Amino acid sequence: MNEQAPAPINSLSVPRYAEIASFMRAPIVRLEALDAIDIALCGVPFDLGVGFRPGARFGPAALREASRMLRRINATTGVNPFELARVGDAGDAPTHPFDLLVSFDLITSYFSQLSAAGVRPVVAGGDHGITLPILRGLHAGHPLGLVQIDAHADIFDEFLGSRYNHATPFRRAIEEGLLDPRRCIQIGLRGGKATPTDWQWGLEQGIRMLDYDEYESLGRAAVVDEIRRVIGDGPTYISFDIDGLDPVYAPGTGSPEPGGITMRDAQVILRALTGVNIIAADVVEVAPPLDPSGTTAITGANIMYELLCLVASAPR
Amino acid sequence: MNEQAPAPINSLSVPRYAEIASFMRAPIVRLEALDAIDIALCGVPFDLGVGFRPGARFGPAALREASRMLRRINATTGVNPFELARVGDAGDAPTHPFDLLVSFDLITSYFSQLSAAGVRPVVAGGDHGITLPILRGLHAGHPLGLVQIDAHADIFDEFLGSRYNHATPFRRAIEEGLLDPRRCIQIGLRGGKATPTDWQWGLEQGIRMLDYDEYESLGRAAVVDEIRRVIGDGPTYISFDIDGLDPVYAPGTGSPEPGGITMRDAQVILRALTGVNIIAADVVEVAPPLDPSGTTAITGANIMYELLCLVASAPR
Amino acid sequence: MNEQAPAPINSLSVPRYAEIASFMRAPIVRLEALDAIDIALCGVPFDLGVGFRPGARFGPAALREASRMLRRINATTGVNPFELARVGDAGDAPTHPFDLLVSFDLITSYFSQLSAAGVRPVVAGGDHGITLPILRGLHAGHPLGLVQIDAHADIFDEFLGSRYNHATPFRRAIEEGLLDPRRCIQIGLRGGKATPTDWQWGLEQGIRMLDYDEYESLGRAAVVDEIRRVIGDGPTYISFDIDGLDPVYAPGTGSPEPGGITMRDAQVILRALTGVNIIAADVVEVAPPLDPSGTTAITGANIMYELLCLVASAPR
Amino acid sequence: MNEQAPAPINSLSVPRYAEIASFMRAPIVRLEALDAIDIALCGVPFDLGVGFRPGARFGPAALREASRMLRRINATTGVNPFELARVGDAGDAPTHPFDLLVSFDLITSYFSQLSAAGVRPVVAGGDHGITLPILRGLHAGHPLGLVQIDAHADIFDEFLGSRYNHATPFRRAIEEGLLDPRRCIQIGLRGGKATPTDWQWGLEQGIRMLDYDEYESLGRAAVVDEIRRVIGDGPTYISFDIDGLDPVYAPGTGSPEPGGITMRDAQVILRALTGVNIIAADVVEVAPPLDPSGTTAITGANIMYELLCLVASAPR
Amino acid sequence: MNEQAPAPINSLSVPRYAEIASFMRAPIVRLEALDAIDIALCGVPFDLGVGFRPGARFGPAALREASRMLRRINATTGVNPFELARVGDAGDAPTHPFDLLVSFDLITSYFSQLSAAGVRPVVAGGDHGITLPILRGLHAGHPLGLVQIDAHADIFDEFLGSRYNHATPFRRAIEEGLLDPRRCIQIGLRGGKATPTDWQWGLEQGIRMLDYDEYESLGRAAVVDEIRRVIGDGPTYISFDIDGLDPVYAPGTGSPEPGGITMRDAQVILRALTGVNIIAADVVEVAPPLDPSGTTAITGANIMYELLCLVASAPR
Amino acid sequence: MNEQAPAPINSLSVPRYAEIASFMRAPIVRLEALDAIDIALCGVPFDLGVGFRPGARFGPAALREASRMLRRINATTGVNPFELARVGDAGDAPTHPFDLLVSFDLITSYFSQLSAAGVRPVVAGGDHGITLPILRGLHAGHPLGLVQIDAHADIFDEFLGSRYNHATPFRRAIEEGLLDPRRCIQIGLRGGKATPTDWQWGLEQGIRMLDYDEYESLGRAAVVDEIRRVIGDGPTYISFDIDGLDPVYAPGTGSPEPGGITMRDAQVILRALTGVNIIAADVVEVAPPLDPSGTTAITGANIMYELLCLVASAPR
Repeated sequence: MNEQAPAPINSLSVPRYAEIASFMRAPIVRLEALDAIDIALCGVPFDLGVGFRPGARFGPAALREASRMLRRINATTGVNPFELARVGDAGDAPTHPFDLLVSFDLITSYFSQLSAAGVRPVVAGGDHGITLPILRGLHAGHPLGLVQIDAHADIFDEFLGSRYNHATPFRRAIEEGLLDPRRCIQIGLRGGKATPTDWQWGLEQGIRMLDYDEYESLGRAAVVDEIRRVIGDGPTYISFDIDGLDPVYAPGTGSPEPGGITMRDAQVILRALTGVNIIAADVVEVAPPLDPSGTTAITGANIMYELLCLVASAPR
Repeated sequence: MNEQAPAPINSLSVPRYAEIASFMRAPIVRLEALDAIDIALCGVPFDLGVGFRPGARFGPAALREASRMLRRINATTGVNPFELARVGDAGDAPTHPFDLLVSFDLITSYFSQLSAAGVRPVVAGGDHGITLPILRGLHAGHPLGLVQIDAHADIFDEFLGSRYNHATPFRRAIEEGLLDPRRCIQIGLRGGKATPTDWQWGLEQGIRMLDYDEYESLGRAAVVDEIRRVIGDGPTYISFDIDGLDPVYAPGTGSPEPGGITMRDAQVILRALTGVNIIAADVVEVAPPLDPSGTTAITGANIMYELLCLVASAPR
Repeated sequence: MNEQAPAPINSLSVPRYAEIASFMRAPIVRLEALDAIDIALCGVPFDLGVGFRPGARFGPAALREASRMLRRINATTGVNPFELARVGDAGDAPTHPFDLLVSFDLITSYFSQLSAAGVRPVVAGGDHGITLPILRGLHAGHPLGLVQIDAHADIFDEFLGSRYNHATPFRRAIEEGLLDPRRCIQIGLRGGKATPTDWQWGLEQGIRMLDYDEYESLGRAAVVDEIRRVIGDGPTYISFDIDGLDPVYAPGTGSPEPGGITMRDAQVILRALTGVNIIAADVVEVAPPLDPSGTTAITGANIMYELLCLVASAPR
Repeated sequence: MNEQAPAPINSLSVPRYAEIASFMRAPIVRLEALDAIDIALCGVPFDLGVGFRPGARFGPAALREASRMLRRINATTGVNPFELARVGDAGDAPTHPFDLLVSFDLITSYFSQLSAAGVRPVVAGGDHGITLPILRGLHAGHPLGLVQIDAHADIFDEFLGSRYNHATPFRRAIEEGLLDPRRCIQIGLRGGKATPTDWQWGLEQGIRMLDYDEYESLGRAAVVDEIRRVIGDGPTYISFDIDGLDPVYAPGTGSPEPGGITMRDAQVILRALTGVNIIAADVVEVAPPLDPSGTTAITGANIMYELLCLVASAPR
Repeated sequence: MNEQAPAPINSLSVPRYAEIASFMRAPIVRLEALDAIDIALCGVPFDLGVGFRPGARFGPAALREASRMLRRINATTGVNPFELARVGDAGDAPTHPFDLLVSFDLITSYFSQLSAAGVRPVVAGGDHGITLPILRGLHAGHPLGLVQIDAHADIFDEFLGSRYNHATPFRRAIEEGLLDPRRCIQIGLRGGKATPTDWQWGLEQGIRMLDYDEYESLGRAAVVDEIRRVIGDGPTYISFDIDGLDPVYAPGTGSPEPGGITMRDAQVILRALTGVNIIAADVVEVAPPLDPSGTTAITGANIMYELLCLVASAPR
Repeated sequence: MNEQAPAPINSLSVPRYAEIASFMRAPIVRLEALDAIDIALCGVPFDLGVGFRPGARFGPAALREASRMLRRINATTGVNPFELARVGDAGDAPTHPFDLLVSFDLITSYFSQLSAAGVRPVVAGGDHGITLPILRGLHAGHPLGLVQIDAHADIFDEFLGSRYNHATPFRRAIEEGLLDPRRCIQIGLRGGKATPTDWQWGLEQGIRMLDYDEYESLGRAAVVDEIRRVIGDGPTYISFDIDGLDPVYAPGTGSPEPGGITMRDAQVILRALTGVNIIAADVVEVAPPLDPSGTTAITGANIMYELLCLVASAPR
């Protein structure tokens, strides 16, 4: 146990509905004080990369509120991330409300600061476009592995006339050497295709693209084995697009695709990666204005907690 | 590929939130121009056949909006219905807001016109009562086979003192010779019964009635085999009552019955019927006023797309 | 069949949206007329035991409305509880809106009256705190067995500084001799833990605590066997916390925990207990203000119906 | 004060969220026991007369729930209707879910029974079509006066091909001699017109038709004088279409018309009629499925209470 | 009356819930067929100019749906715009989902086409940023007058680091000579200020800036006089930001400001401009994802109808 | 201007949807650092004093989120509270989720700390019960004056068997010498009465009780004069129950009463008190679970801002 770990608000004495909402009730830290923490919970309130239904810019705010109800110890793995690491809420990365590329640079710069301070981020998006500037900020000279849970591969070269948006981040990241395609695995792919060759580039790069039909025929346990095989021991990033889940678990997202992963499967898969070399992670595409029941925010906060458990239990 | 196929709006250049909503962004066709299309996407905005919670009259409008987000190529089967056939939005069948029987005649007449023009319909209801006048309009002298996904058998002789409503269409259709009961299969039946003999007539006719208990014990693959066995090669109609699904996928319907088919199962079953002799289909009982999250409309639009793929890939 | 059974409102002649809402449209009975019924459907509108999100005080009202749509005969078991027993809606137990302990005494007294009249209750809560005073009221000298479906064990000694609330009822009930811990089984446990020893006391008492991981690895059929083994032939109470289900079936509850039991599994498990010695039951934690789509109320009403079928078919 | 008045549930001892919902928590009376009451609060769950958005069939259920929060004594007039008269909830008039004309006969018959028993009704609809069969049931040989608050005159001869629906009741009622047009006043009219002659028949009959422009230029006090002048001392019916109010007070209605009467004005106008010869009243067109916030039900319940105060304080 | 006027769908025979939704059920026209109409109802689905809460890109879709319920003849003025002019739904202006400036050029080009064809637009936005490219497209060499109903002046030089967004259009339009500031009047201004000099530039240009305090003290009639005085006889554009209204009439907008204009006042003011030289108009900032009750869409559709009446009755 | 004033987050550079939500984006201060501020924005998340519909415990969280959209300078008065005083968000007062009286002591203690540090609070509730412990905490030996905007007088001696709840705070406060009844004025009273003598005690004490009828007949300007006359120059507390407003402005509250004060009137009245000796204030009864559209939270945040302007501009 880490003796200096700053404690989150104690929900056994302070009711969950009280006090300013930070992610998982963690203490709020300023960028100037990053040396006080090992892991930064942080937000990227940005959705200019969305081609259809916006709203993910409110993802961080909603996940802060929804994460009030999380407890500290993982029910299955027994991991208590707040003991394994010093965890803080580092606020939101800066963004620009009108300019996508300016926002990307601001986001990159923010994550560079975290990286320079040796702080590992667990991020609440934002649309999936943000993963590119996050990876740029984290880049330390060598490409990372990737576990991507998603209904869509997000490897278009261009989408609606633009090379930078929520349909292209993984193509750009591989082109820029931020990810090693042979250590990338995508799980839950199932959205309809715009052209017959939507996947071609990814397969050529060597990405392990697992559509939902294959996912189902392999079964959950074999999928876990496959993930471990693909990413190996190297440093790996997890990007969890909430639309990888079936829409009943996450209706409040821009591009829901019926027929997806159950929340239970997602939990089991993530928990099975405990101890793996996960150095950072994000959960993206939670769009609160499309989530009147609040279900998606609760789902997203629970996923963010599982990601925190993984980053906290990873080897350092 | 059909060279003359009129293209739907191209979602790679026109954003999905733009332009007048037609089903799956298909071009709008007038009844006078039916020779321009092979398949008509159309609505039947009618819910006078509902005994409990109305609202399905807004089903066509909601499915037009929700279908903005569909892509062209089926993720599993690779079918692109817009290449296989000329597809258009033929608007809505006329109905009468106060008179059920007058509406039935108007609906019948509309589908007779489609039928006479050799156009195959894929229909958005409306309550399940509409399937009777649709079948009347499509009737070409020989009874059809039926695949019905539904929580309820809808074969009452009389319901709340009326012989024509959403609880009786398949009894009437069999009596009228529109359906061949020995080529009819009902899947997902599970609602509580009003009397111990609710199913008796159907079984006597030879309908293959598959309740959810049997569905589960057979398993999805065997169910597909059973469907193919029952309907054989003859022309067949698919009637998909959205309440056949578990209510988490379709809360916005008049008579939700917990414990039903998953959306994934529905997708796999329908896709497994690719190439079968499906000549028309409907998705019914989407009730937008009961669907504040919009989940049901999205589900319904996806089902309608799967039905379109089947009709487009059927032998002609 | 019970010849004198007072019939619920006949939904084949009176539309479901008509008339004053009573549970399952059962006749309304006064406490003075308890000899007219064998089973009392009743509410306990109370949520002062909630530590986070209130609202369950409106559970009984919402379940009365939602139960309009239930039919009489169980689709799987064929049980018609309204024939097996005389069933009435006995209104709500009295409660106090500001004082938890006074409410507990009022609730105990109400259920003592039912018990004294030989009437078996099927209860709509209210938060889970109410199970303690219900059990007190039903107590007849010997401890009962328990089947608890729940995401949380609810066996804290103290929670937020209080010994009586929705996190402690089963600890108190065992301490008071109302339940026999060796005849208690808890199913679906999965919420994160506040301390590593959250479960210790329960295991020491001999409660069979089945978390979701074990639930899944055993499989549904083995779980049913395990329930029957634990409770045996003795009189048993079922307490169904709606948060035992996955939140997609019951988003409107105070402490949703993703990754839970499906509604289908719940139905199958409960139906498999037909004929077991179930003497009373509750469904708790339906919180209508958190349920904008009404899904949770529909789920809860269906569970309440299954519980009624069990109590009606139990040996007397 | 009426010594025998059966008291509604006492909200100073029984919390408002407890017990079966009846209108204003009044005791529930059966039709067989009508001699126990002077005024019947009752529902007409019917919306087959609606040409656009249905849902008013759930009006009575929603108003029962919403009326839980009403207190007994009128804040302005000091009237306590529960002291002035014996008030009960007489349930709902029977209706038929598929047949408008059969429903009309059932409704007429129900109100004839009340009338024969000397019981005055205060009614929750239902769409505006119900006012015709109510007036038929109440008819005692002489035409009544009418105060109608409404955005629409509802005097079409025919609407969407039908003579009986929510756009025609007052034309029919005048033709049938149920109302005396010269003692009829309509307030708040403002919906756009379908034809230039929409009002012609009404003006010819001598109905005092007050559109919102004239309403505003007269001012509230003069409108009250005009109402009193038109209806005089004769027995009068009040029909309050909730869409007479501005939609901000009643968004949950089928045909909202912006720019209408404020709730405050409605309260002041109704209270100013205390002591006038009002023999029955209805509030119609509350459509709960269109009312996600519940605002309209609360508004409707408050209007129903004001109507009760008027009927209770009318000369007998 | 215009003999060739293409009729909208007749709501006296086709129910309002039927058929593809076009603005006010007007016939759909293609850009190639602009000579068939005098007035184009059209949408600009764009919200990249929003600094806080997006969603207005769905404004045109929502107003098409909501406008189903409008009738043809203005209740107060008697104007029937469908008789005075040939009115069609010209679809949506093209936009780009990721690039604000590209979108502005696309919008300008669309309105240039309308202008070249002599067709006058009545526009549904979209955020307020769109008014600039609309005015560019309509520009015919001479600056226009402006009636702006709005909570905010929208004359910032720069906002969040950008010169083009929904806070700057009127500054840019005046700078570009599209508007004559001395013929511009802004009504309903009331939002809090970011700096003490927020208004300074506008006052220096000679814009008549009427905040809500002055609006109230002048009174509605004097405000109408002031509008007429400022705009005179010259060609004038009306830009109606829905947040000019009090938020109770339009909660579904990005920046609601309590304490605003009532819908009634807006109707009266607009109707008082009948016959004035209004050559085009827009209603902007309706954001459907923020409008769960649909109130704002109904309000917006009614305003759009009033604007249509003005453009239809203007001198040509 | 206060040179040391800590600035709230600058909304001209940091988008409003970014960063952790504090009240009005003010800097977050710890209780240990109270000397850094003059005014504390703070929450009291408590609703155990509610007799009907709970939810106000989430008021502070919702107002923090909604206050993101406020600007700094008052549109009418020109007051910039962040220049006049050092303003911080001091988090929430501690409360106990199960024990009303323990909570009251915790709340009192928190406000005593603020008071001891010379910090003036502007409070977001919470139900109206909290005003009593706030006043206890602020008590400095002399009774305060009171401006109460409310639909209910909240001066019951006992309510539902309890002397401490949201219906009794002002009786207790006067009895305890915390308020001087002759310097108390209540505005907007209008809820129905439970007994004819509901107001008697208040009138006897000399409270100026202004019901809505009198409010309307006096007119807004005279009401302002009356407020100034009653409270005079002495230190005064403002307690703003959101249900004092008409429910259209604040539907999300436990006990809405139709026919109340408009938001505009509330703004004008509060702004007219600029410079008066207001030493603290609260806005209470915002209940987010009853506020699906978020309207009430926006209204409440705007009221809280007006209260801040008053406290900031008061003489010290």
